[in-house]
Amino acid sequence: VSLLTDFGLRDPSPAILHGVILGIAPEARIVDVSHEVEKFAIRDGAFLLSLALPYLPVGVHVGVVDPGVGTDRRPIAIRVARGDVLVGPDNGLLLPATAGLGGIEAVRLLAEPRLMRPEISRSFHGRDIFAPVAAHLAASGAGFEDVGPPIDPGDLVELAFARPEIAARELRTSVVYVDTFGNVKLGATPGDLAAAIGPLRDGRRLAIRLADGSAATSIAWHDTFGLAGEGDALLYEDSYGRLCLAINRGAAATRFDLRLDDPIEIGG
Amino acid sequence: VSLLTDFGLRDPSPAILHGVILGIAPEARIVDVSHEVEKFAIRDGAFLLSLALPYLPVGVHVGVVDPGVGTDRRPIAIRVARGDVLVGPDNGLLLPATAGLGGIEAVRLLAEPRLMRPEISRSFHGRDIFAPVAAHLAASGAGFEDVGPPIDPGDLVELAFARPEIAARELRTSVVYVDTFGNVKLGATPGDLAAAIGPLRDGRRLAIRLADGSAATSIAWHDTFGLAGEGDALLYEDSYGRLCLAINRGAAATRFDLRLDDPIEIGG
Amino acid sequence: VSLLTDFGLRDPSPAILHGVILGIAPEARIVDVSHEVEKFAIRDGAFLLSLALPYLPVGVHVGVVDPGVGTDRRPIAIRVARGDVLVGPDNGLLLPATAGLGGIEAVRLLAEPRLMRPEISRSFHGRDIFAPVAAHLAASGAGFEDVGPPIDPGDLVELAFARPEIAARELRTSVVYVDTFGNVKLGATPGDLAAAIGPLRDGRRLAIRLADGSAATSIAWHDTFGLAGEGDALLYEDSYGRLCLAINRGAAATRFDLRLDDPIEIGG
Repeated sequence: VSLLTDFGLRDPSPAILHGVILGIAPEARIVDVSHEVEKFAIRDGAFLLSLALPYLPVGVHVGVVDPGVGTDRRPIAIRVARGDVLVGPDNGLLLPATAGLGGIEAVRLLAEPRLMRPEISRSFHGRDIFAPVAAHLAASGAGFEDVGPPIDPGDLVELAFARPEIAARELRTSVVYVDTFGNVKLGATPGDLAAAIGPLRDGRRLAIRLADGSAATSIAWHDTFGLAGEGDALLYEDSYGRLCLAINRGAAATRFDLRLDDPIEIGG
Repeated sequence: VSLLTDFGLRDPSPAILHGVILGIAPEARIVDVSHEVEKFAIRDGAFLLSLALPYLPVGVHVGVVDPGVGTDRRPIAIRVARGDVLVGPDNGLLLPATAGLGGIEAVRLLAEPRLMRPEISRSFHGRDIFAPVAAHLAASGAGFEDVGPPIDPGDLVELAFARPEIAARELRTSVVYVDTFGNVKLGATPGDLAAAIGPLRDGRRLAIRLADGSAATSIAWHDTFGLAGEGDALLYEDSYGRLCLAINRGAAATRFDLRLDDPIEIGG
Repeated sequence: VSLLTDFGLRDPSPAILHGVILGIAPEARIVDVSHEVEKFAIRDGAFLLSLALPYLPVGVHVGVVDPGVGTDRRPIAIRVARGDVLVGPDNGLLLPATAGLGGIEAVRLLAEPRLMRPEISRSFHGRDIFAPVAAHLAASGAGFEDVGPPIDPGDLVELAFARPEIAARELRTSVVYVDTFGNVKLGATPGDLAAAIGPLRDGRRLAIRLADGSAATSIAWHDTFGLAGEGDALLYEDSYGRLCLAINRGAAATRFDLRLDDPIEIGG
């Protein structure tokens, strides 16, 4: 069982999920993907799940970034081709990760009270619904079909992720995540950039333009951080195959004052 | 075995507790309740333990928020009716959690050197006393009676927690915990509030007065966050049955500048 | 298997290490020493490993503070006399911990692709090299000799750690680590201090001089925090046998504005 939430590690909520799961499935192995997702940031959570889950063993994955808890947003479970089941709210959090796990096979509404805690609070469905359902699935005390009626995958809430624009000699994209190093992950791949400006070789100079109207900045393409000078900015392919802006031993997000969704143009 | 400390996750101290426990009880399952309790904040630690432990499987629970380590404050173990044993310093940290676990059955002083590390430091009893004793108990290598002589439960150090005042048409209470969302947990229940001002229905307007002398603020009672407008304040029953002040997708503690023990009055 | 990195707990990288390890060694017990090591701070990571590992069961320990990832710095494994294997980059991170584990027995270059992920990224060797090699060792699917050819231990990259200077009536040392309490760990032992100024008894007054040119401050030697007045500074022997500057219920690093490597002189 894996867990991703925005609960924060100071509060006992992550431990309560562990406790609820171990109470139902004492043999379960639990991996904490993150409990420090930015509060209410469904897209950040969705992005982190999509990065992490392909590297985790096949299992049940619980995601809870859930500002709509207690309203009529639906609690769901998604089975993917790799064999995993993703459990959480139908607010777009789970969907992006399914592509990297072979795609969606089936979706179910969580509607079986026997698989939940006897009392359901209005604000902590992680504890009362998602964790117990996941634990029953992990312990094989329930099959996927037992959690509730099927839902049409086409009806699931979907997040809007910006697509890269490949123009003549320029790629237009935007920030999709800033990691704890201050590395800026962009909504495009090195392939997109090469399609716009041609082959990327270590040391090639590129011009990046930010939306703040400032002049273009010249930075180099490098194959890894350590090939840039210390304190120098670089564009590179991150370890997930994504285009990423970084500073060798520094924080690009701080240097360039970049936040989620900020646009960025990269020329050759 | 569960662990709650104020050690912080950057330092290796929580891992050292894991290592000491696994060295004695290799099969133990360890749940980290929190290692990010505010430094020296015994009451915060006590509050978090009382929230979390009822949801954890029966086991041995170690609590270490221990500014008096190395002085004459006593190391203790408390057995509760549910079957758990709580291990830590006698400074009030463990006591509040016992009520939710069926109440105290017996208390013992930790005084058996064979269950501790051979050398006891003056400043890290978590590593040298509490974790090894807990591990021996968890591994059934020692029974509760083996840890040391009995102590009268009435002699334990007790923390002062403010009680709510139910006045005519007004409830007077105070802040008992601010969670990582900035939600403000109060020292009263919705039942206390209803006793003062009558039934609480979704959408009912309430007037809150803070101690800073500012005018009363009108906010609504809601059954959950998502029923308030985005950015709107609400009072609601949290998932532990407690009265709580929050902002839908925001941080009430920041908006109202509230800290531990700050008084708050709520009128109908 | 234990893990120490500077990845940060918000990002999914620590969970990905867990996932990769559990995929290869499903029965492995994983202890997170820390993932909140200051970014790129190889010395901090080395110091924390050296504190923690002696208290962990014999096992495979992965360390990743690795600003040179993807350059020609070598990936290595070190076997120590206690029986542990340390896995990580050859940048000085692993070496200081070996002394507390009985010393180095042998060193190997990680060069066996069968023990790694099929594709090696340029920036995430924790996932692609270190974690899988460690998991194969932990699962006994590979012996230490299988990971690659031997390296001369004398060729390993070594960090410079300042040594204490014991002068007449004065000890000169410097800050080696600031923990999450703000306690300041110094590069000397109480034995070094006693060698300079004579026996240390609880309550003895000492004079500390900082490099900022300010006048000496008089503080007391105490056996533990709680014996100093609340808010008073003290020098004491920390729970690892190290000289440490602290404030009872406060943060010495903040009060004295001390950072890594800052010099400090202590007189009798």
